[in-house]
Amino acid sequence: MTTDFGISDWYVGALRGAVLKRWPEGRLVDISHGIAPQDIASAALVVRMACPEFPVGTVHLVVVDPGVGTQRDGVVVSAGGHLFVGPDNGVLVPVVEQLGVESIQRIDNPDLCADRISRTFHGRDVFGPVAGFLAGGGAVGSVGPSLSTLVPCPPEPAVEVTADAIVGQVVAIDRFGNLITNIERIDAPAAIVRVQAGEHVVHGLMETYGESGTKDLIALFGSSGRLELALPNGSAAEALPAEVGLPVVVQGGRS
Amino acid sequence: MTTDFGISDWYVGALRGAVLKRWPEGRLVDISHGIAPQDIASAALVVRMACPEFPVGTVHLVVVDPGVGTQRDGVVVSAGGHLFVGPDNGVLVPVVEQLGVESIQRIDNPDLCADRISRTFHGRDVFGPVAGFLAGGGAVGSVGPSLSTLVPCPPEPAVEVTADAIVGQVVAIDRFGNLITNIERIDAPAAIVRVQAGEHVVHGLMETYGESGTKDLIALFGSSGRLELALPNGSAAEALPAEVGLPVVVQGGRS
Amino acid sequence: MTTDFGISDWYVGALRGAVLKRWPEGRLVDISHGIAPQDIASAALVVRMACPEFPVGTVHLVVVDPGVGTQRDGVVVSAGGHLFVGPDNGVLVPVVEQLGVESIQRIDNPDLCADRISRTFHGRDVFGPVAGFLAGGGAVGSVGPSLSTLVPCPPEPAVEVTADAIVGQVVAIDRFGNLITNIERIDAPAAIVRVQAGEHVVHGLMETYGESGTKDLIALFGSSGRLELALPNGSAAEALPAEVGLPVVVQGGRS
Repeated sequence: MTTDFGISDWYVGALRGAVLKRWPEGRLVDISHGIAPQDIASAALVVRMACPEFPVGTVHLVVVDPGVGTQRDGVVVSAGGHLFVGPDNGVLVPVVEQLGVESIQRIDNPDLCADRISRTFHGRDVFGPVAGFLAGGGAVGSVGPSLSTLVPCPPEPAVEVTADAIVGQVVAIDRFGNLITNIERIDAPAAIVRVQAGEHVVHGLMETYGESGTKDLIALFGSSGRLELALPNGSAAEALPAEVGLPVVVQGGRS
Repeated sequence: MTTDFGISDWYVGALRGAVLKRWPEGRLVDISHGIAPQDIASAALVVRMACPEFPVGTVHLVVVDPGVGTQRDGVVVSAGGHLFVGPDNGVLVPVVEQLGVESIQRIDNPDLCADRISRTFHGRDVFGPVAGFLAGGGAVGSVGPSLSTLVPCPPEPAVEVTADAIVGQVVAIDRFGNLITNIERIDAPAAIVRVQAGEHVVHGLMETYGESGTKDLIALFGSSGRLELALPNGSAAEALPAEVGLPVVVQGGRS
Repeated sequence: MTTDFGISDWYVGALRGAVLKRWPEGRLVDISHGIAPQDIASAALVVRMACPEFPVGTVHLVVVDPGVGTQRDGVVVSAGGHLFVGPDNGVLVPVVEQLGVESIQRIDNPDLCADRISRTFHGRDVFGPVAGFLAGGGAVGSVGPSLSTLVPCPPEPAVEVTADAIVGQVVAIDRFGNLITNIERIDAPAAIVRVQAGEHVVHGLMETYGESGTKDLIALFGSSGRLELALPNGSAAEALPAEVGLPVVVQGGRS
């Protein structure tokens, strides 16, 4: 389960109950309920990073849904042996494209939903019950008609490649204050000699957070496969300070 | 499980362990551990909104307990086919009255509790073990003697009905910054034409958060069945700004 | 599971997936993911307070790991019938010493880990898979060679005992704003007559948070067995105000 519901209100509880009502023996596992409200792009990144770690056969329920109750569809996507349930607003696109889309169904079967479907809480009334139905062994085909495409995801800012540099930006800041960029290892020079984040310059690349033995800013490719800036035993985000959107310039050289 | 323990200390972990010690094959599901400390009224609202979504047979453990270790009782309430375990301080009253109280037991059987019962953590030492016992199939009757009534819940502020308006107030603010009032649909005029929150006026009523296509404050009946004020893709609470207690005035007209 | 990952990023989700991939029928239970980043001492305290509440046979996964990817080992410790999986940086030491260490294994079997082991996320790539292997019934002996000792835990500040007083300090502040000290009941005078926290003085000792009937600061031995300072229905930490490290002086007298 991944939502932007937070964990202080009753929304996550109601969602869990709605799943379990259709799947009483169910086991629920959270990815995050701390997605920034209505932030489809952030949710798409979190889901893409976490969901593929789960075993094949997992049903993933993703509810970040600013358009709840409007014309947007709800969908079930089969990809890489996993099932994804959520709104058709792009949030599922990066993960299902990475895993390989096998089929898309539009949710259109009221028998699988709550008796009364509100127009403000489809997590509880549509997506949760459908996820419970599927996790309990229900057939994907009974959810609704097939679709051929999904609404695209809001694109990440593009990485700019010039003659002597790669220019990207910070796209996420994690709980440790690490600055996660949109620069993938494959896009970067084989030997990185200089990384500039805002006005801060880092020379060379580390392999781990702890090895530098310094308290200076370091650059490394993190577990996400993205270039990160980090402060050993501290928060790079606080130290610079930095926010999402900060430009990051990478320069290579002879290794 | 619903508590005001937060999720950074060891309290929730100890509570979960205490349940599982009595119910090793148990499945634990959280509603919220983010209730404001000692806020019985907030907890009562969250529990009332979320617990009825769960399947019949669920054991609900609710620990918001400012009077822990004093004279207040612990109780098990059977209501609508669910069981509720918690302190007798009113926190369970709204949900069990809604579901229909079937029986009330005062917890009075030390064999079902921890070997040593502290006076500061009955979640771990009393309520958790009793909930584990019940969830594992233990008999409600063995918990303790029957009670005929519960300590009442701190009442929500009343809605005032005048000749030409309904006057309520904001009673909760959710993670999206939506202002949730104490005005139920049944109390409101059939056709709402004007809603005033503090000095902000909204005309008409929406059905969804996303349909207005504007960035202006809207009014709608949310998934809770309560009148809400919301800011599409934003936080009404920050925009106004608003806090719990803000008066909300509703006026109807010919529809 | 206990980590410093927070609950907004994808790290906890990826960790859970990694466990379930090795243990598909698994049941995961959280202690806390809200440990302050890289705070080994806090994590050690939380783990020591919560883990012993769980049934014998539980596998505890603890990932607070500032040295990830460097020379530090990963270990599996058997203690009191529980298994503990985590980095060998001291975080497990207080709990396993309390429960009684039965064996220590160094994690050294790549077959039990992810196919590719990153140097920045051993929770996902090493500790999670090993925990899943063990929870699913895998043999401890197959994890790696035995070790005879663990890296020690950063020590808590010592309590100082003088002729007429015990001098400790605040070592943790919980969600309720209670100030938890390093003074255990066994170290304190049988009859405490005066507790001084910073410049605030409390006379006598309470048994519960609620019994004083006042809004004044109280002192009591909390559920952790430690001396605490608390404000009934309020936050002692905000009222004083107080931070971790505040000296606390206890004086006894004839009871």
